Amino acid sequence: MIFIGERINTGFKDIKQGVTDKDPAPLVHWATKQAEAGAGFLDVNLGAVSADPADMCWMIETVQGAVETPICIDTNKPTILAEAIKVTRPGMLINSTTAAPEKLDVMMPIAAEHGACIIGLVMDESGTPKSVDKRVENAGMIVAKAMECGMEPDRVFLDPIVMPLKYMQDQCKMILEAVRQFQLFSDPPPNTVCGLSNISNGTTQKSLIDRTFLVMAINNGMSSAICDVMDTELVNAALTAELMMDKQIYADAYVRK
Amino acid sequence: MIFIGERINTGFKDIKQGVTDKDPAPLVHWATKQAEAGAGFLDVNLGAVSADPADMCWMIETVQGAVETPICIDTNKPTILAEAIKVTRPGMLINSTTAAPEKLDVMMPIAAEHGACIIGLVMDESGTPKSVDKRVENAGMIVAKAMECGMEPDRVFLDPIVMPLKYMQDQCKMILEAVRQFQLFSDPPPNTVCGLSNISNGTTQKSLIDRTFLVMAINNGMSSAICDVMDTELVNAALTAELMMDKQIYADAYVRK
Repeated sequence: MIFIGERINTGFKDIKQGVTDKDPAPLVHWATKQAEAGAGFLDVNLGAVSADPADMCWMIETVQGAVETPICIDTNKPTILAEAIKVTRPGMLINSTTAAPEKLDVMMPIAAEHGACIIGLVMDESGTPKSVDKRVENAGMIVAKAMECGMEPDRVFLDPIVMPLKYMQDQCKMILEAVRQFQLFSDPPPNTVCGLSNISNGTTQKSLIDRTFLVMAINNGMSSAICDVMDTELVNAALTAELMMDKQIYADAYVRK
Repeated sequence: MIFIGERINTGFKDIKQGVTDKDPAPLVHWATKQAEAGAGFLDVNLGAVSADPADMCWMIETVQGAVETPICIDTNKPTILAEAIKVTRPGMLINSTTAAPEKLDVMMPIAAEHGACIIGLVMDESGTPKSVDKRVENAGMIVAKAMECGMEPDRVFLDPIVMPLKYMQDQCKMILEAVRQFQLFSDPPPNTVCGLSNISNGTTQKSLIDRTFLVMAINNGMSSAICDVMDTELVNAALTAELMMDKQIYADAYVRK
């Protein structure tokens, strides 16, 4: 399981303040904590705080100064990505492209050129699909584009686009089924990822709902999640699910304390 | 989710003592507790304490005197079953048959005659299968026999036979896949059940492992489990998984306290 730390995001007040004041402390704090908790990537998201690529570069360089963990460059602005990727160490993950041609045709070549992995949201110009079939169709377009650019399929992290259980309950099993079908594209299959906290949006049982969904998704082949890597119960549930899928060898001491 | 209470079993010291002394107190205690916790059936198992059908009848009558919850008659001895079923209220579950003809040909007609549901362990005279295919083949024989006896497929509770994660780790994903394939037999599908605690046998993280497996099994269609119905975390994980599968309607207050 590749855990992608969600915490370096200006949606969190302390990170927003850090970026505004150019105070590295909160970024260094969360970079260190998430790296220690075993994050495979650290998502870095400038959000709407600024449209200046220099601010995103500052965030990335601050994180990279604190830890070795690879960066997940989280931006939907090609101008920010173009600058950010220049300062990012190799082995980065780009978050994200979609299957819409105007996006896919720009983003995938950038990923290919920089040896990056890339998250592919299975939406297109008509929006987020409601059906399994349309999710799989969009995923296929993203994987095909990657291969056209000379990338192995597992450099793509397909994101089925998780919807809130509370507001779109019927979507959940379709999302899980889409993840299962993504496994059939290639061997080894593409990676699969989600923005986990979306599933529990608006609920009173966020941690329970997040970890239950992640366990089910792992059962269907999900290999990664953008999540709260500090949530030990979440991490232990995911590790247990991976034992069930025979992806790790059982040992009595497999859980995190 | 149909929770089957595992606690009235002479494998537990207090129940064994109760049966030996003909003291109803521990049986009444656990019958009441499990019924209050929402058990759909109460498993009653005499084990090796006695071979006298009268002792099993006493256990069942004691439980039935305390609660309305239907009984799951847990015995592999046809002589005990023959007497026990006479004192058991309608709506019982028989635990269990296998796919071995000498067993299946005896047990399934008894279930049919009494309007009972029956657990079908997907093993046969050659033992417990290691493969998905053999599990599904045995399951098919059990379902076919039920239909031959005039029973709807969902009166069968197929048990894929859960093996310990610690000792037979590669079996786990095969068991989960078998459960998924059991769903294809009929619409509505047969019920599916397991002796849940087997999965965590010998481990240090029993509750975590039990509930993680159950969530994954529910993702594949499992509809029932013989388990510790007093384990609130287990029950809440299962309820959450059923929301994900759109089998219950979400409400903020869906969890048990």
